[in-house]
Amino acid sequence: MKECFPRIGVLTVGDELLSCETLDTNVRFIASSLGEAGFVVSRHVTVPDNVEDISREVRALSHVCEAVIVTGGLGPTSDDLTRESISSAVGKELVFHPSLKDGLERFFKRLGRPMAKENLSQAYLPQGAVVIPPAGGTAPGFMIARGAALIVALPGVPKEMQSMLATHVMPELARRFPTAELSVTRRIMTFGMGESDVAGVVADLIDAGSVKYGFLATEGVVVVKLTARGADAKCANAMLDVEQAMVAERLGNLIFAVGDRSMEDATGELLRERALTIATAESVTAGMVSSRIANTPGSSAYLRGGVVAYSADEKTRLLNVPANLLADGAVSEDVAEAMAHGARALFDSDLAIATTGIAGPGSLRENKPVGTVVIALAHEKGVLSQTYLLPGDRMRIRNVATLAALNMVRLHLA
Amino acid sequence: MKECFPRIGVLTVGDELLSCETLDTNVRFIASSLGEAGFVVSRHVTVPDNVEDISREVRALSHVCEAVIVTGGLGPTSDDLTRESISSAVGKELVFHPSLKDGLERFFKRLGRPMAKENLSQAYLPQGAVVIPPAGGTAPGFMIARGAALIVALPGVPKEMQSMLATHVMPELARRFPTAELSVTRRIMTFGMGESDVAGVVADLIDAGSVKYGFLATEGVVVVKLTARGADAKCANAMLDVEQAMVAERLGNLIFAVGDRSMEDATGELLRERALTIATAESVTAGMVSSRIANTPGSSAYLRGGVVAYSADEKTRLLNVPANLLADGAVSEDVAEAMAHGARALFDSDLAIATTGIAGPGSLRENKPVGTVVIALAHEKGVLSQTYLLPGDRMRIRNVATLAALNMVRLHLA
Repeated sequence: MKECFPRIGVLTVGDELLSCETLDTNVRFIASSLGEAGFVVSRHVTVPDNVEDISREVRALSHVCEAVIVTGGLGPTSDDLTRESISSAVGKELVFHPSLKDGLERFFKRLGRPMAKENLSQAYLPQGAVVIPPAGGTAPGFMIARGAALIVALPGVPKEMQSMLATHVMPELARRFPTAELSVTRRIMTFGMGESDVAGVVADLIDAGSVKYGFLATEGVVVVKLTARGADAKCANAMLDVEQAMVAERLGNLIFAVGDRSMEDATGELLRERALTIATAESVTAGMVSSRIANTPGSSAYLRGGVVAYSADEKTRLLNVPANLLADGAVSEDVAEAMAHGARALFDSDLAIATTGIAGPGSLRENKPVGTVVIALAHEKGVLSQTYLLPGDRMRIRNVATLAALNMVRLHLA
Repeated sequence: MKECFPRIGVLTVGDELLSCETLDTNVRFIASSLGEAGFVVSRHVTVPDNVEDISREVRALSHVCEAVIVTGGLGPTSDDLTRESISSAVGKELVFHPSLKDGLERFFKRLGRPMAKENLSQAYLPQGAVVIPPAGGTAPGFMIARGAALIVALPGVPKEMQSMLATHVMPELARRFPTAELSVTRRIMTFGMGESDVAGVVADLIDAGSVKYGFLATEGVVVVKLTARGADAKCANAMLDVEQAMVAERLGNLIFAVGDRSMEDATGELLRERALTIATAESVTAGMVSSRIANTPGSSAYLRGGVVAYSADEKTRLLNVPANLLADGAVSEDVAEAMAHGARALFDSDLAIATTGIAGPGSLRENKPVGTVVIALAHEKGVLSQTYLLPGDRMRIRNVATLAALNMVRLHLA
């Protein structure tokens, strides 16, 4: 990676990143965004909340990098020291920006809260800095030169950082460093098979062409990441179209989306297209399925509602699950199917999805292993159900069960 | 953190850490292990797989740190360059260790596989290095001096790194730096006030004593982080007890927990102590409140169930909200209170919590701004409700509304 140009350094600031408290996900996001534009992070340093450390490192990075992206330390409290440190590193005084102060006052006025005097510190930036307006929070970012290097300061709050990176930093980098080759990444999102199995299914494609493969597994979802380099976006995308078609032929309906799209968005789009409504009956997931459906803006068009029925009693009373089905425990396909029928009737919806299972840690009442989950889908022509044995802890089991429920709806409609 | 001793630097090696592919969890583990023994990571640097970068950074860190822990680059392939780089940084040749070769051969014999000749490189370590035997894999670690600094090389595979850290590195650090002061951190978790306001309330305490303050804001929750250093844990904790008492006097019932505890755990403990049951009626949060209560193991003891009533129709039909209350929209204290009463009756619970609001992005049907959320709590003696105007996007509004709902239960029981 020695020859790469421009060299971009990332400096993350915060005691919490050097203790065990916060996992630094910002670097990963920045590396990914830069990568898509054909840039590479050549160095990443983390320093504590300390003016001397921050400013020394800004100086050091600016000697060996063409651009330095600093995240964190732009908040209003006494341990937010990035403004002061960069001011010292570039040798420019902090100057007051009345327009930033006005913005801060409007922010708090809209919330109906007085502005703390600590927030005023956020209206001071090094002289000559280009202001990046606050993106949802109170912290502005900024860009300033040190010698030939561009220093960029962004808040540590991921959403604000991501927004500023997209709207201000990437365009500035593209302007300063027109790259010869562009790299485009496409993410193919799958559910229903493990990472090594997905990789096995496409194994012979991996070294067959010039498109680079990567695999990322999070809870239940396996992402196949295709990266192509080309003279322009059209050329790279054409290569990706061909590769994607081959991957899709192998993976079929395991693929729930292409691009950074959630399962609930994919499922929601199908419901909307067919003008169908849905309701939920949840035991083990206790509201995760309904709340996840509601993540998608506009979901009120198809989400009728849901019932969380944690006890056998509620399953019978609210969802009409026959008491005799519950005599042997609540985790069975019969119970799940009855719950789905009950929710469909209660909410008068086209579809209803039900979950029941054992998330642990203990499994006192049921004669089944922790991780057993049953999902059922009632529709106009009947009901279908499936039993899973999911690995992991309580949270992972419930998260994957939620995805499996949404996926069952998707497969039914696809 | 300028004065902390010994200064420990962490250098992680690997191209994949500078792209978006791998999240570097090793640093977090190392920081956590060191922290428990009273040590602090004072600097963390990531470099690509490149002899020049690695050896330069080892030299640089050894000038400003008493100990440098390098992870990664100890594998058998051509991009594993840490042995060579440290050899160059300390000015000692790589020498062959017959015992390491014997161990490698035994390793592959057990697997019934021939040893690739690449693996032989793992039997070479800088002259004078103390060998750390392989821990489950093929890579040995090692420790070697550079001037006054201790250089430690560990594999990047988390399990192997963690094992060697525990068995060899921590004992060596404890032996070398017995006078190390211990540092203890305590997290005071608050909800209900912004970060700058919380900081403002304790502003005069921050520089008044030797306890260090830090503030972390995530969605809705502001953590006040107190760190004390002392000769031993008892001494540091005694300082923290005094400081915590002063902070608690200022912040009062904004504090929902001390230590790494979630709002649902704190609220759940109160419900369990009082042997009270709870139910939910959710509109804007659509199941987030019930699923969050169910995050806590054993919550089935107090969570009766919940209803997600997304439309006006369901609010009336399932929760008995009078239709005339809904004529002007679903976001009002009257509606929220009626929903809470309805859920309490439906589930025959001691308490019921209701949410209604506008999470956006649009606000078509309601004559109120996006972010307006009303929460109501019905209990045996009546009902209480509160209206909030929450900032942020759809997801943040719903997350903070969920916390506010749980917090209302907590305040009622506290």
